[in-house]
Amino acid sequence: MSTFGSHFRVTTYGESHCRSVGCIVDGCPPGMELSEADIQPQMTRRRPGQSAIATPRDEKDRVEIQSGTEFGVTLGTPIGMRVLNENQRPKDYGNATMDMYPRPSHADWTYLEKYGVKASSGGGRSSARETIGRVAAGAIAEKYLGLAYGVEIVAFVSSVGREFLFPPTATHPTAATNPEFLALLATVDRATVDAHQPVRCPSGEAAARMERLVGEFRDRQDSIGGTVTCVVRNVPSGLGEPCFDKLEALLAHAMLSIPATKAFELGSGFGGCQIPGSVHNDPFVKAAAAPPPTNASGPPRPRLTTKTNNSGGIQGGITNGEPVYFTVGFKPPATIGQAQHTARYDEEDGVLEAKGRHDPCVVPRAVPIVESMAALVIMDAVLAQQARERARSLLPRAET
Amino acid sequence: MSTFGSHFRVTTYGESHCRSVGCIVDGCPPGMELSEADIQPQMTRRRPGQSAIATPRDEKDRVEIQSGTEFGVTLGTPIGMRVLNENQRPKDYGNATMDMYPRPSHADWTYLEKYGVKASSGGGRSSARETIGRVAAGAIAEKYLGLAYGVEIVAFVSSVGREFLFPPTATHPTAATNPEFLALLATVDRATVDAHQPVRCPSGEAAARMERLVGEFRDRQDSIGGTVTCVVRNVPSGLGEPCFDKLEALLAHAMLSIPATKAFELGSGFGGCQIPGSVHNDPFVKAAAAPPPTNASGPPRPRLTTKTNNSGGIQGGITNGEPVYFTVGFKPPATIGQAQHTARYDEEDGVLEAKGRHDPCVVPRAVPIVESMAALVIMDAVLAQQARERARSLLPRAET
Amino acid sequence: MSTFGSHFRVTTYGESHCRSVGCIVDGCPPGMELSEADIQPQMTRRRPGQSAIATPRDEKDRVEIQSGTEFGVTLGTPIGMRVLNENQRPKDYGNATMDMYPRPSHADWTYLEKYGVKASSGGGRSSARETIGRVAAGAIAEKYLGLAYGVEIVAFVSSVGREFLFPPTATHPTAATNPEFLALLATVDRATVDAHQPVRCPSGEAAARMERLVGEFRDRQDSIGGTVTCVVRNVPSGLGEPCFDKLEALLAHAMLSIPATKAFELGSGFGGCQIPGSVHNDPFVKAAAAPPPTNASGPPRPRLTTKTNNSGGIQGGITNGEPVYFTVGFKPPATIGQAQHTARYDEEDGVLEAKGRHDPCVVPRAVPIVESMAALVIMDAVLAQQARERARSLLPRAET
Amino acid sequence: MSTFGSHFRVTTYGESHCRSVGCIVDGCPPGMELSEADIQPQMTRRRPGQSAIATPRDEKDRVEIQSGTEFGVTLGTPIGMRVLNENQRPKDYGNATMDMYPRPSHADWTYLEKYGVKASSGGGRSSARETIGRVAAGAIAEKYLGLAYGVEIVAFVSSVGREFLFPPTATHPTAATNPEFLALLATVDRATVDAHQPVRCPSGEAAARMERLVGEFRDRQDSIGGTVTCVVRNVPSGLGEPCFDKLEALLAHAMLSIPATKAFELGSGFGGCQIPGSVHNDPFVKAAAAPPPTNASGPPRPRLTTKTNNSGGIQGGITNGEPVYFTVGFKPPATIGQAQHTARYDEEDGVLEAKGRHDPCVVPRAVPIVESMAALVIMDAVLAQQARERARSLLPRAET
Repeated sequence: MSTFGSHFRVTTYGESHCRSVGCIVDGCPPGMELSEADIQPQMTRRRPGQSAIATPRDEKDRVEIQSGTEFGVTLGTPIGMRVLNENQRPKDYGNATMDMYPRPSHADWTYLEKYGVKASSGGGRSSARETIGRVAAGAIAEKYLGLAYGVEIVAFVSSVGREFLFPPTATHPTAATNPEFLALLATVDRATVDAHQPVRCPSGEAAARMERLVGEFRDRQDSIGGTVTCVVRNVPSGLGEPCFDKLEALLAHAMLSIPATKAFELGSGFGGCQIPGSVHNDPFVKAAAAPPPTNASGPPRPRLTTKTNNSGGIQGGITNGEPVYFTVGFKPPATIGQAQHTARYDEEDGVLEAKGRHDPCVVPRAVPIVESMAALVIMDAVLAQQARERARSLLPRAET
Repeated sequence: MSTFGSHFRVTTYGESHCRSVGCIVDGCPPGMELSEADIQPQMTRRRPGQSAIATPRDEKDRVEIQSGTEFGVTLGTPIGMRVLNENQRPKDYGNATMDMYPRPSHADWTYLEKYGVKASSGGGRSSARETIGRVAAGAIAEKYLGLAYGVEIVAFVSSVGREFLFPPTATHPTAATNPEFLALLATVDRATVDAHQPVRCPSGEAAARMERLVGEFRDRQDSIGGTVTCVVRNVPSGLGEPCFDKLEALLAHAMLSIPATKAFELGSGFGGCQIPGSVHNDPFVKAAAAPPPTNASGPPRPRLTTKTNNSGGIQGGITNGEPVYFTVGFKPPATIGQAQHTARYDEEDGVLEAKGRHDPCVVPRAVPIVESMAALVIMDAVLAQQARERARSLLPRAET
Repeated sequence: MSTFGSHFRVTTYGESHCRSVGCIVDGCPPGMELSEADIQPQMTRRRPGQSAIATPRDEKDRVEIQSGTEFGVTLGTPIGMRVLNENQRPKDYGNATMDMYPRPSHADWTYLEKYGVKASSGGGRSSARETIGRVAAGAIAEKYLGLAYGVEIVAFVSSVGREFLFPPTATHPTAATNPEFLALLATVDRATVDAHQPVRCPSGEAAARMERLVGEFRDRQDSIGGTVTCVVRNVPSGLGEPCFDKLEALLAHAMLSIPATKAFELGSGFGGCQIPGSVHNDPFVKAAAAPPPTNASGPPRPRLTTKTNNSGGIQGGITNGEPVYFTVGFKPPATIGQAQHTARYDEEDGVLEAKGRHDPCVVPRAVPIVESMAALVIMDAVLAQQARERARSLLPRAET
Repeated sequence: MSTFGSHFRVTTYGESHCRSVGCIVDGCPPGMELSEADIQPQMTRRRPGQSAIATPRDEKDRVEIQSGTEFGVTLGTPIGMRVLNENQRPKDYGNATMDMYPRPSHADWTYLEKYGVKASSGGGRSSARETIGRVAAGAIAEKYLGLAYGVEIVAFVSSVGREFLFPPTATHPTAATNPEFLALLATVDRATVDAHQPVRCPSGEAAARMERLVGEFRDRQDSIGGTVTCVVRNVPSGLGEPCFDKLEALLAHAMLSIPATKAFELGSGFGGCQIPGSVHNDPFVKAAAAPPPTNASGPPRPRLTTKTNNSGGIQGGITNGEPVYFTVGFKPPATIGQAQHTARYDEEDGVLEAKGRHDPCVVPRAVPIVESMAALVIMDAVLAQQARERARSLLPRAET
């Protein structure tokens, strides 16, 4: 389906070569100031062509709000948004070669199996261009979360190939147990991340290692994957709707719906499966006196917090008020300059050679997309929990 | 929410200490033979108390179909199912200690933050007992998938702590590139898995290593996590509903909704992010002549297949007909015998000592739960794609 | 589908001859006192066999809560409920005659067309017994609405055949413009309705006319339809989710999902289509000072109200705080004692004679079902609007 | 919510004065020829300003497909559609008067109660302009239904005020029992309906009566309501998803979501509640040999049909293959030229005088909107039933 979320519902449309791409956001709270200026920054961060690493296609990606606001304030009605496609006609795509070959590890073949129609760009909706609607919608969610709760969402590149920001070690098979990593999560911001272009890894040393590696793959017309880690700070406690819609389940769903993703881990993740429960458990401690809430009517911060955060801020599928963090794995881009031996649509063997230049590594550009999907998940969970809190507040106290 | 799926919709109810647990399955195809005998085997595999490793609670877990079948055939109406809780009264739980302490890395605290009600068993719906409804429903899905497509779903323990069935190596940072692993996926069955009790790892050597490790953790009243790998064979091509409901996104959602899970990876997974695109891409080859379909009216197998399967059977969010496989990470169980320093509900520090005996490792028992959730995801995707195929088949051929 | 509602989600199961019927209620606010005693009264009102008019089947219909409450308080988790079927074996049904004939205007034929399976009771889910789950769930919704807002829901029989409580006249083609009718809506309660058994029309004179008419139809082994009017008082303003989920659209959906219904009208209804806009429009007037709210944190009553209420309390799909009222039409029961010429399953003509005794008129028994469905609609809309209010309350005031 | 349908999902956006209005259609079968030319005719029929009766605003309403088709064929991906608003700036609206008064029986007041934001056009989404997205989407549904099943959907005006096409009589309290009415349903087409402009009642005599009545109301600056009857022919049997999503429930939901509607009745409707069961029941008869199906793989027509059609083609919530027909009641338009005594936002009494010219009767223009919503309901039900048929077809025959 092309709709994400139950309460804050985003429906997207558009593929690479049609007139426009966009989305409808239904369920945005009314009375919030909102204009294109709130949305464009993440759209621009998502754009390709920002560095030597990224693809040179020049897309402008100016978002236009169609509806749902008046005089710069949300009405509570659906917000339509649209971004024009500048290249509506297939150029590099749709040529004879592309007509003959389903590209390996692309969606050309599976889209044909599914829909029975061969689009000019192969799996049109599997293109990165489809993510524009997500980012536009995510920016709206993020604005609300910031205003209402002071939520901060920051993603960064945590590995490229085997170059890690925090390599797994015998002591720390997961970065979750590493105080340095937790310290970074507590403070990292987008400015710092973007200062480390082109790889968006907030450490000069690691960023240099990663950039070098990407350069090597580009030079040999190959590609390489990597991971993006994302932290959400000031997330209210109580978010997540067990049993099927635990917050980590929704985050995993959201992240694995991003093109080219292969893996997701919350908090200690796979590494956490290797350490004893006695180390992994997060003991409770009394919380520091909460800072004055962003908004006077906002919910109080929990009285207890945890000493460690292997849980990644989620226990039993529900947030506990600690930072939520997770890591997403992106495979190496499927389009490479090297020739590939592969079968054609007509079942004959052949050799496919891709034209043009292509991203050797997508993780830097995935950063704002990961942030946007995180915002959509948190926003949806916030609205669900707000409804519960409000419903409960109207009941007389039960005698138990 | 307590509902999973759009077309094959499973709604579950029940916590540890109420009268019963169960579910309603809505959307099961009519005309399928079905009785409790189809469901009980997986219920029994899910039961604790089957080995020295597992918890000694003796639950009978006999499923009773309430509705939706007549004379052993599904009517197409909702199938109600119920399993009685034998221990409705809290015993080990609900005592003075549990009343004082939110257990570390349990759901006690977050359930209280979310619902504002302290249940006698802490986070009642976060209990493993909640999974009964999933397994009952999954067995129905699995029966359909087997009859209609010959689908086979087999899960097994692939690691406990740092004991791996296929340890990552420099050559194979992911097992996905290891032909031995792919060979196992092609053949492993449940009988073999269950023959390697108590750990359900289908290799005597690895199973012995894992069993030893679990024993060590049991002896020191600690716990340890692990991973479960699951393969789905004979899955039709064309499943998955981009862009938000890519098949891997639904699988990730399903798996991360299982209690104690922390991580999910499809196909090559995180390891696949470390290898070059030129190695990771799965070239197409002509498919072998398909075996006669299970059912004469079943869809044809695809004409092309892939030489390797780093994609895990899914490309662009859609199955390509190759085996779908994925790995799920389970954290060490939060309940341990060791004393733990942690704050009480009243914010005072204290020392919590758990009573009773507890599972030092949940992964063996998670095996049928992972299979069940996989069955629910595939079944839902199958019904969605069947609708599309049928809808399309009634159209005149478009002139293009 | 067998699920109703988005926020307060009710999923039902069960047909006439299976083990039990029941439902799962997901989304009930936590912390509300709830026991079977809150639910049974409406279950009992729904039961057949309460008067000479109704069918003599004696069903006990004792509801059992399975989950979701502890010590008499809701946990916020799914509430499973179950009512045993006492007659699991078809008796009057499922015999040779029923096997040969699809009963005219019953669901036997269409269920067979839809599902391809012939159930022993014909269209099993089309039986009135299916409504048990609705009534059980509705009772929970109603309890919440009463506690939180003082909502009162009362339905009554407003016509049987051409015997009307308020017959249409030239002056009042719709009762909506009749002050007597509005006065009744403002005061009618369930005790009064039930005092006029067997027809549940809250006027001795009209009830007598209706009872006589029903008796005539019973005597000639025929049946007759009628209408049920329902009023919801103290409904908060702001309910309803345009554009597709206007409150009247949800009410219509709910009511037309009750077996044997044919028609729905809100407020002035069809009669309102016959009067001038200048009469139909409801002018605004300043509202009387609101009574102290049931609950201190409850929303304030609107400052304006309407002088008349042809709108039925809903304008633009959203409640304005005035009583919501509507009328539902029920066709004459399809099962009649008279012989009927009709075709058999084998396409041969024949004469069908129904055995046993049957309700000549279902409207009295439909009264609690209409109330229950109204409660489900209002509850769902309340939760949706509470979420919006809460979301908005956390925003800084927009500068406009 | 702004989404309608489960399988063929339409999400709309836009109010009167924003940049554009439009929708996203998700779930359209792939491989269908589709262009703007398939959609524009119903858009144009929906437009105001086509006759002396209708409002003189001149809107062009040219639909532009944004995505989801390529070379004139649907891809199976979301179809974005957009229609520009030409008058983005409030003119007649948004002035001092409108700022002071909530218009009686309009949505101004309830939108303010719900959203807390006063839009320049009052209840922006309650405007008729919102229906553009529905009509665009309905045209796509209708095209599929016609190609796949030969479905024909025709709506017409059946009454204005007390001027009826088939007035209720003692013999026929419902037109459903009148053979003349059934004959009209069997043959009426859109050309005939449109030939009777401006009222779209397919009978010269009745149309003249209605036109005269509308003229009278226009002359005295008042307004009048009416009814639209709609028939759907060649609808497949087996549509509708009991128990909550019976086809009549979905139709009622759809129709009551159209602005200004107050009432819905299926088949015999309210009148049918007044006639004996022995007359109301529809006996089965052997169906005539079916015409060759439109499409070779289409489902066979049922072997039985009904002699009468008081059921309106739906029994037990499921279509039986007979024509589905229903009637929708529209209230008199709330905007009238006469002065109205009513309270202001500031709670003071006052006199409101509307400026400009306004429709004295909306039913003629509602005709294509009713057809469009009917198409959306039938399409959604068709996809649900196609999935069931396909799922069942892959099962071995059950032994019963």
